[in-house]
Amino acid sequence: MKKLLFGLPKGSLQEATFTIMKKAGFFITVNSRSYMPDIDDQEIEPRLIRAQEISRYVEQGSLDAGITGYDWIVENGSDVEEVADLVYAKQGFRPIRWVVAVPNDSPIRTVRDLNGKRIASEAVGITRRFLKSHGVEAEVEFSWGATEIKAPELVDAIVELTETGSSLRANNLRILDTVLESTTRLIANKSAWNDKWKQEKIKQIAILLNGALSAESRVLLKMNVLQEKVKIITDILPALHAPTISHLNAEGWVAVESVVEERIVRKIIPRLKAAGAEGIIEIPLNKVIV
Amino acid sequence: MKKLLFGLPKGSLQEATFTIMKKAGFFITVNSRSYMPDIDDQEIEPRLIRAQEISRYVEQGSLDAGITGYDWIVENGSDVEEVADLVYAKQGFRPIRWVVAVPNDSPIRTVRDLNGKRIASEAVGITRRFLKSHGVEAEVEFSWGATEIKAPELVDAIVELTETGSSLRANNLRILDTVLESTTRLIANKSAWNDKWKQEKIKQIAILLNGALSAESRVLLKMNVLQEKVKIITDILPALHAPTISHLNAEGWVAVESVVEERIVRKIIPRLKAAGAEGIIEIPLNKVIV
Amino acid sequence: MKKLLFGLPKGSLQEATFTIMKKAGFFITVNSRSYMPDIDDQEIEPRLIRAQEISRYVEQGSLDAGITGYDWIVENGSDVEEVADLVYAKQGFRPIRWVVAVPNDSPIRTVRDLNGKRIASEAVGITRRFLKSHGVEAEVEFSWGATEIKAPELVDAIVELTETGSSLRANNLRILDTVLESTTRLIANKSAWNDKWKQEKIKQIAILLNGALSAESRVLLKMNVLQEKVKIITDILPALHAPTISHLNAEGWVAVESVVEERIVRKIIPRLKAAGAEGIIEIPLNKVIV
Amino acid sequence: MKKLLFGLPKGSLQEATFTIMKKAGFFITVNSRSYMPDIDDQEIEPRLIRAQEISRYVEQGSLDAGITGYDWIVENGSDVEEVADLVYAKQGFRPIRWVVAVPNDSPIRTVRDLNGKRIASEAVGITRRFLKSHGVEAEVEFSWGATEIKAPELVDAIVELTETGSSLRANNLRILDTVLESTTRLIANKSAWNDKWKQEKIKQIAILLNGALSAESRVLLKMNVLQEKVKIITDILPALHAPTISHLNAEGWVAVESVVEERIVRKIIPRLKAAGAEGIIEIPLNKVIV
Amino acid sequence: MKKLLFGLPKGSLQEATFTIMKKAGFFITVNSRSYMPDIDDQEIEPRLIRAQEISRYVEQGSLDAGITGYDWIVENGSDVEEVADLVYAKQGFRPIRWVVAVPNDSPIRTVRDLNGKRIASEAVGITRRFLKSHGVEAEVEFSWGATEIKAPELVDAIVELTETGSSLRANNLRILDTVLESTTRLIANKSAWNDKWKQEKIKQIAILLNGALSAESRVLLKMNVLQEKVKIITDILPALHAPTISHLNAEGWVAVESVVEERIVRKIIPRLKAAGAEGIIEIPLNKVIV
Amino acid sequence: MKKLLFGLPKGSLQEATFTIMKKAGFFITVNSRSYMPDIDDQEIEPRLIRAQEISRYVEQGSLDAGITGYDWIVENGSDVEEVADLVYAKQGFRPIRWVVAVPNDSPIRTVRDLNGKRIASEAVGITRRFLKSHGVEAEVEFSWGATEIKAPELVDAIVELTETGSSLRANNLRILDTVLESTTRLIANKSAWNDKWKQEKIKQIAILLNGALSAESRVLLKMNVLQEKVKIITDILPALHAPTISHLNAEGWVAVESVVEERIVRKIIPRLKAAGAEGIIEIPLNKVIV
Repeated sequence: MKKLLFGLPKGSLQEATFTIMKKAGFFITVNSRSYMPDIDDQEIEPRLIRAQEISRYVEQGSLDAGITGYDWIVENGSDVEEVADLVYAKQGFRPIRWVVAVPNDSPIRTVRDLNGKRIASEAVGITRRFLKSHGVEAEVEFSWGATEIKAPELVDAIVELTETGSSLRANNLRILDTVLESTTRLIANKSAWNDKWKQEKIKQIAILLNGALSAESRVLLKMNVLQEKVKIITDILPALHAPTISHLNAEGWVAVESVVEERIVRKIIPRLKAAGAEGIIEIPLNKVIV
Repeated sequence: MKKLLFGLPKGSLQEATFTIMKKAGFFITVNSRSYMPDIDDQEIEPRLIRAQEISRYVEQGSLDAGITGYDWIVENGSDVEEVADLVYAKQGFRPIRWVVAVPNDSPIRTVRDLNGKRIASEAVGITRRFLKSHGVEAEVEFSWGATEIKAPELVDAIVELTETGSSLRANNLRILDTVLESTTRLIANKSAWNDKWKQEKIKQIAILLNGALSAESRVLLKMNVLQEKVKIITDILPALHAPTISHLNAEGWVAVESVVEERIVRKIIPRLKAAGAEGIIEIPLNKVIV
Repeated sequence: MKKLLFGLPKGSLQEATFTIMKKAGFFITVNSRSYMPDIDDQEIEPRLIRAQEISRYVEQGSLDAGITGYDWIVENGSDVEEVADLVYAKQGFRPIRWVVAVPNDSPIRTVRDLNGKRIASEAVGITRRFLKSHGVEAEVEFSWGATEIKAPELVDAIVELTETGSSLRANNLRILDTVLESTTRLIANKSAWNDKWKQEKIKQIAILLNGALSAESRVLLKMNVLQEKVKIITDILPALHAPTISHLNAEGWVAVESVVEERIVRKIIPRLKAAGAEGIIEIPLNKVIV
Repeated sequence: MKKLLFGLPKGSLQEATFTIMKKAGFFITVNSRSYMPDIDDQEIEPRLIRAQEISRYVEQGSLDAGITGYDWIVENGSDVEEVADLVYAKQGFRPIRWVVAVPNDSPIRTVRDLNGKRIASEAVGITRRFLKSHGVEAEVEFSWGATEIKAPELVDAIVELTETGSSLRANNLRILDTVLESTTRLIANKSAWNDKWKQEKIKQIAILLNGALSAESRVLLKMNVLQEKVKIITDILPALHAPTISHLNAEGWVAVESVVEERIVRKIIPRLKAAGAEGIIEIPLNKVIV
Repeated sequence: MKKLLFGLPKGSLQEATFTIMKKAGFFITVNSRSYMPDIDDQEIEPRLIRAQEISRYVEQGSLDAGITGYDWIVENGSDVEEVADLVYAKQGFRPIRWVVAVPNDSPIRTVRDLNGKRIASEAVGITRRFLKSHGVEAEVEFSWGATEIKAPELVDAIVELTETGSSLRANNLRILDTVLESTTRLIANKSAWNDKWKQEKIKQIAILLNGALSAESRVLLKMNVLQEKVKIITDILPALHAPTISHLNAEGWVAVESVVEERIVRKIIPRLKAAGAEGIIEIPLNKVIV
Repeated sequence: MKKLLFGLPKGSLQEATFTIMKKAGFFITVNSRSYMPDIDDQEIEPRLIRAQEISRYVEQGSLDAGITGYDWIVENGSDVEEVADLVYAKQGFRPIRWVVAVPNDSPIRTVRDLNGKRIASEAVGITRRFLKSHGVEAEVEFSWGATEIKAPELVDAIVELTETGSSLRANNLRILDTVLESTTRLIANKSAWNDKWKQEKIKQIAILLNGALSAESRVLLKMNVLQEKVKIITDILPALHAPTISHLNAEGWVAVESVVEERIVRKIIPRLKAAGAEGIIEIPLNKVIV
């Protein structure tokens, strides 16, 4: 039987990845041999590897495909097929940023001022590329972690990942510039991508992951409406997805259903109610295939 | 931009409040500065404050609105606008009670017998009002907590909150009378309520909270029924919400949908099945706007 | 008021049982007197008892009905009414197995080779029945737990429960044969079963538990389809449950709804999409009454 | 190299046993193969086995020696050499008791009244022996645990272990009689005891365990005393261990040292001080070899 | 038998109190009835009560004696006998402070500037006394907790307990002045103190608690010294406690022993070594009776 | 005031380091700004930094001194003063080893066979030095962690730290050779070492750390002996530290005291007892200054 060697990110992205894979329909359990988790799909052979290393092993063919961050693809300079952009991260459904930061009271004001300074980062490659693109020469040293605490005693600036900025603030650091924005990616080895069976399998995973991600921020709104008010109601609903309208037994009434972004529900419900919608209910969704 | 200063109850009501706010569509995260949580609505500026104090700060205008217990509004004697009665508490969706209790073997039998006795309570004001209304004079002392353990060695009776009564039973206490029933309330400062923008914002929160609370105990039942049996089926379904009936492709069949209380599902499913309903499914709901 | 004395399994099956009971519509909370949990149905009087003992107490009438494993019904040789086979276990929705196992390097190759050996098991009765049916005579000793570590130093073979086999592998044991396959059962005392009210109540529980279990592995798929493509689409959907088709307001379009196994969704979604289905959404289900 | 196969009790006695072994000078660590812990003595080969089973495996020679409770030696009726009585248990340094208990409101008043009743216990053998010695005939059934909750609904009485009695009180049970008092024992297989090397090794363990146990409840008191007051001071110190008296540089002063029970220190310190002892200090002890 | 009703502080002081009581020789265990812990001294009847309330109940005679903070004696204005000053607190062996603090950027610079302002505190009485002594009039409101977060939005200043000041810094607060320094106290009811048996018992507790507290920060240093160097060595040792000197078998050598503060050991050990002390060892102490 | 900037290892060595520092007399607490812990010595300014980086920052002078592993000094090729060799590690008081390991069934048998292979390690520098010294050329890649799981799928061999070897065994790896043995070291910056005050302070820390480490594995044995048996007894005691002998009040008796290794106590106690030693006690030690 054909098998797809598939890399999953161990560490900070792991929990979010397992959750979204489960919503996509793939149930993964980590057993005692945690490097080789179990998955309920016999065509997939999963491997649990640090996000930092997945693109390296996909590039050299030890893995057929995998999920990792765009940042680490850049850091490793890996030549891989980017199949899908999956907008989720450890703490939510938005991109993360690598930023260059300096102490609040540092005299450094612009990226240019970093010239001749010492910078610590876990992402030495990304940092060097960024400095080069700004024509800055600086000493970049690899940091084994806890990078935020190093400035100003040990280094002049740091390049560090931030989701909310709170860890930087807590360490009295000021963001100078964004070095790289990154999202999670589904990537494939180039020759695996040329294999028909493997490409189809990877695409199946991509469709389902996207379906699950779309459902993550959407709900189904359903309401009963008098035929004559359908236009007013549907004007309130966002144009993106056309609502589904079906006739009801009760003369003159229709049911209106629409998939909408959860974050706009709180805005449109008062308006729908005011416009005559009755029996409005909101239903959770597992998948939305766009 | 306009902002609503909104008090959320820190402590025993906190988790239940965050959960219901999330279902209503407002996602709150407590960061390192826990007094000022983050919320995904730029029009709201949340503050995390002890439930005991919220009505006091709403009354004096440090907060525009807030969520707290009716008991603490009474205890503080706060003059505020009560916008909505939200029936949930720490342990479930029902009112809580403050009761006056005495040791099982106490000679005190009625509220009258409390005359001249010593009573400990965290709610000194409520206790005094209650005693006065019964024409009883007693010494009421403030209790810093663990009130149930004080009778009979330290005091003669206590006035304490009870959700299930199990803590009283465990301390060999007998309930003499109910002092106050309380539910959670959405309250507003009186002059904030007179501000058009603020009132609308507070009403939006009220509609969504009520929608989420209604959904908490309801589900959507859906089934296929032969046209001729529709009457029998809809007679089994509770009259409160009229079911939605739509035609199916299959000749003579209709789909019947109804929002029902979850707690009656177990009673009506056997009857619906017996009456000829087919393919009955139960779907969870996020919101029900009545 | 009539009451059904109902045994729930304390221990490894407890959490899974409480979860499935909740989905069925019965909310159980364990209070300080854990032997008598609370349930939100006044007609049921629950008792929390070790799974090993429930069938014994159902047989002798201390309980009217209960949930336990088929293995312990056999071990105890209990004469009870088996009302429903509920396919769930501690770790998932599949049967568990009792197996006889020996050390990897043991000379024992077949069940016959167990003749004259010493075998440890928590299920002495099941083990003796199995050996007898194979014409083998061996010494069977009761094991108080940690049975996997006993061979080869303390005994020659063990009979032990296995859900995934990983504990056996970790102890260098090799499975010789399956002794018994077991699933969870709803059982009733024979004379309680002859009481009309009790039988009806037990049947109600059975219908709802089965409804919840069916929903566990199923979802509702919903999509919009051009009238002319309905045949192609419904051919992709599994034949088991006929899909529900309803007319939409938009000329020539119908809505197709079908309850399907979750594990096939990942296979059919790419095909449905390819066949022209639009706006495919997947909705979670609480109950499916077959 | 010679090895002593030594059984250590897994479960409730485990932590207390590891602690006392460490004080005796043997450091045990439980690794991934928990059945075979590591010990820093190459002459000992430890095995971690349920206390209930150790005497059985010592008797049949799978173990040379081991630590277990006297109760389980009796329950199993094992014929072993009892080398030392080590007075410690899960919760402290005193014997534990198996008691027969009935519900507070049971009509059963004496052991005699148990005639014809049903009794549940984890220790079926001990229970039967006890009943027989009282000339009582009753049905004794094996309990898989949570025995305290079984009376009166499932059985009439229970025989259960109690260290403090609090679990019995919490379940409204009344103690009828003590069935067996038990302490922890160091036992040996009879033929291992006849092996010179093994007997010496087992005796070494016994001396060190006793030394550590003695130190557990004792401390070293040390004080300076005027020569003329030595008699008064030593009269206050308990006679059991003669105090050590040594001359000091300061003319007329001696140092008095004595190992005393920690629990009497609080009584004698005020008296020693009053009698003229100066610079009294209390020093902790690891071992006291009597 | 005579009994001393003894109050122990529940809450933040509890763990430190139980630890020091244990070192003093009294072993307390909290059972299911946590208000009445167990103690291994039949002459003491312990009660576990909030530190805030102990002095109130000692004053009114519900307790004979107890351990609480000096701050709460002042707050309650309790008229009790102060038997001993025990210098320990939640986080260590030093006094704690109540301070008045304002936001870093507040215009309030001195206590005088608090005139006409609003101040929140858990210790309303202490705060009012302090303000009065400075001739300041301000509104003092009771705070139910999390007081540090209230300034400047809800109040102008706070009076709060601080052990390390870190919570104040984290909330951007600046200390204006110290309101009260407090240590832990052993107190007695005045008429209990006049009872001979009770006074003696309370004094015994005081001696032992002081002995344990003294040992907390002290160790026994012991070394061998040539007779001729004794003077040099003893000059290095602190004069407080005269060292004990005893003759050794080896001609010309003596053993020098001294109880010293642990925090000076690191300073004197290099000096002792340089001065010719040999075989220096440091021994832990349980009690030092001064 | 003069200050010593002192690096403490964050991470796996942290707990062991804080414990040994405490025994040495320095009490460190990690506050909210974990990079700058508090210490109870005003002459030390501690910094909490990853063990991997400490030697780098000591070399460049950002730190005056620090505690780190010998392995990371080598990996970083840092030119620092090695002041003391402190034999402790995460799991105990013995050296740790970096080893090169291959899968159990790998054809690689000797270090030579690594020629042309791919090797993963967290310690790329140490690995390259080792291979060079054996004349082997191989591709060494940096591993971000979980190195043991990489062979054979991702690399041919790994170089990894091992304290007990159990993690290697669990991943079916076979040790080929030891790459480096390492212990914890106290290091100093070269110019800080030339500063008189700093050198003295660092030496003080070294003496105290060594004193605490020596005490870790030693105890004080004390016994009473008849004068005529002193020779026999002292012959049993190890020759390393001469025992201290002092006269007792009782005619003909002496007290013998000796600091001995804890691990030999279990061997000599039976012999001492047999030789006539009485009242043998074992006392724990905080420090032993050799």
